[in-house]
Amino acid sequence: MRVYNFSAGPAMLPEEVLKKAAAELTEHGDSGQSVIEMSHRGKDYEAIHNECISLLRETMEIPDNYKVLFIQGGGHMQFDMVPQNLKKNGKADFVVTGQWAGKAQSEAKKYLEANVIASSKDKTFSYIPALDSSEFDKDADYFHICQNNTIFGTRFSKLPETGSVPLVSDMSSCILSEPVDVSKFGIIYACAQKNMGPSGVTVVIIREDLIRDLGDSNVPAMQRYKTYADNNSLYNTPPTFSIYMVKLVLEWIKSKGGLSEIKAYNEKKAAILYDYLDSSKMFNNPVEKEYRSLMNVTFVTGNEELDKKFIAEAKKEGLVTLGGHRSVGGMRASIYNAMPIEGVQKLVDFMRKFEAENSAM
Amino acid sequence: MRVYNFSAGPAMLPEEVLKKAAAELTEHGDSGQSVIEMSHRGKDYEAIHNECISLLRETMEIPDNYKVLFIQGGGHMQFDMVPQNLKKNGKADFVVTGQWAGKAQSEAKKYLEANVIASSKDKTFSYIPALDSSEFDKDADYFHICQNNTIFGTRFSKLPETGSVPLVSDMSSCILSEPVDVSKFGIIYACAQKNMGPSGVTVVIIREDLIRDLGDSNVPAMQRYKTYADNNSLYNTPPTFSIYMVKLVLEWIKSKGGLSEIKAYNEKKAAILYDYLDSSKMFNNPVEKEYRSLMNVTFVTGNEELDKKFIAEAKKEGLVTLGGHRSVGGMRASIYNAMPIEGVQKLVDFMRKFEAENSAM
Repeated sequence: MRVYNFSAGPAMLPEEVLKKAAAELTEHGDSGQSVIEMSHRGKDYEAIHNECISLLRETMEIPDNYKVLFIQGGGHMQFDMVPQNLKKNGKADFVVTGQWAGKAQSEAKKYLEANVIASSKDKTFSYIPALDSSEFDKDADYFHICQNNTIFGTRFSKLPETGSVPLVSDMSSCILSEPVDVSKFGIIYACAQKNMGPSGVTVVIIREDLIRDLGDSNVPAMQRYKTYADNNSLYNTPPTFSIYMVKLVLEWIKSKGGLSEIKAYNEKKAAILYDYLDSSKMFNNPVEKEYRSLMNVTFVTGNEELDKKFIAEAKKEGLVTLGGHRSVGGMRASIYNAMPIEGVQKLVDFMRKFEAENSAM
Repeated sequence: MRVYNFSAGPAMLPEEVLKKAAAELTEHGDSGQSVIEMSHRGKDYEAIHNECISLLRETMEIPDNYKVLFIQGGGHMQFDMVPQNLKKNGKADFVVTGQWAGKAQSEAKKYLEANVIASSKDKTFSYIPALDSSEFDKDADYFHICQNNTIFGTRFSKLPETGSVPLVSDMSSCILSEPVDVSKFGIIYACAQKNMGPSGVTVVIIREDLIRDLGDSNVPAMQRYKTYADNNSLYNTPPTFSIYMVKLVLEWIKSKGGLSEIKAYNEKKAAILYDYLDSSKMFNNPVEKEYRSLMNVTFVTGNEELDKKFIAEAKKEGLVTLGGHRSVGGMRASIYNAMPIEGVQKLVDFMRKFEAENSAM
């Protein structure tokens, strides 16, 4: 029996999508072969690849002056590719709101002056710092944020106004969770393994003027956006299965009515969990309300032994991977698009029961 | 009905493997989740990951002083990672036996003096050049070969003697096709999508002394072998599905009796095709016999129109992806481990029939 999997990524995928993938894994359509056996230069695969791009453009309403690229190496690779490709004046601004935002800044230091203009480290990243755009560097090559912080359960409730400086957003854990205005960004990047599909592919949405010709510089071919843009992400063999799965997930989103419907469903799910947390005497969500993530809900009892007991007993009920990130402990329920409302309801019912049974401890 | 797919990669996989993967794609074992939904930090995935490494060690008899790493970005990424990690004296030797060997050399120029010590470009890469080890640079940081040339259908029939200079081999299209003595190499790398599984993961087998601490140099974290070695290739999210599939393929190889049996089978398959080519008056294999690849068999009729007709008619018979690489044209039959002998026999039967029907042209 399938469990409710609250993993932060790789994460739960829609059961319909998994069933479809399983049904055609030995033979895709009338091709006589599996999608993972198809030459990436053949018409069968190319149709899947292009359909994935076109569904993403449609779903996110991506303007014509942006390209969609498929890159390997996860978000981490983007921490390097962004500065390698966008470096001009040799400096960039960073808001450090957690571990990944911090790594994006520390990798960027290899290439340019990576200025931290705000951080929420003082309160264990439990909020998003207020930003004063008059303090932003007008000559920065880019302005980087991690829009949803998977580990700490926060998200930007409004975007910084960066003017002509390209806003670069790591949307790994919130892409496709709600509509966004793509035109506000220079680059959006997101690894697939949260809301889009399996690990192995990172989607990059980039404004065309930021795809630069790096000429005879020593940036590797595989780390130049232009290599991907000029070859429709087929310069070398792409991670074909991951891209195929993203396509299936996009079809599923479309069948649900698109991102507005997805957002409404996500807000409903998150409200069930946060409402209970706010009423609980045992469980506490440490995040300032305004910045609470729709996707990753963190909570603690304040007692490590009790946290462990909760995670172990929840697992027996088919509510799995509820442990917080190894760097912070506690609990985290990642409730991405594919988590059904029934899963969240079952979790809250279990938490209520656990609280009643353990409140004397 | 499944076809015989002669694609150079992504390529045919064993049907048993595909069926097993399909059967457990919605629920893997008693985990209640798909392998692609599993947290890469959880016990279920970790068991798969470690079993894949241990099966590869067993199958290839990898000595204890070598590490197995899983990296994204394909062979292309290795063209950069090898020089980035091995650079010391600032020079390396290259044998250019085709397009990929050439790209490995041209990317390496970004980091060091990349000396071409031999090339077979003069005869369209139809042979492997004779190598005189007295001409090798004893101070080179490494010596690079592409052991099997997918596009041109050649392979090294014996290895260069590089002494204390680490031999680095791109085995993308021949790994697991026969036993190799791993101790002769400094680094072996191979993308998965030919003999190992789907695209999206590259296996790197590296001698431990070559895993260097690059300290505060500006090499990206994701391009340091040490990042992978220190974290069992789990520094960030690995391409979990691709690694799982490699594990299934390794189990299949084991069930067939291991690499000696695989080699015998591959030699039998290749002999059927080469024997026919040598007897044919229409089809010609351009490669010097000593250097013929066991995995990629190239052939032409000498008439482009006839080549096209052959490829189109073969497709109707369920013999697909027989076109040569877009850079060279003609035909290519990639007959990796998963291609059954029946597929090769059916191809030869069809070639014989085609030759009889078209010999007046």
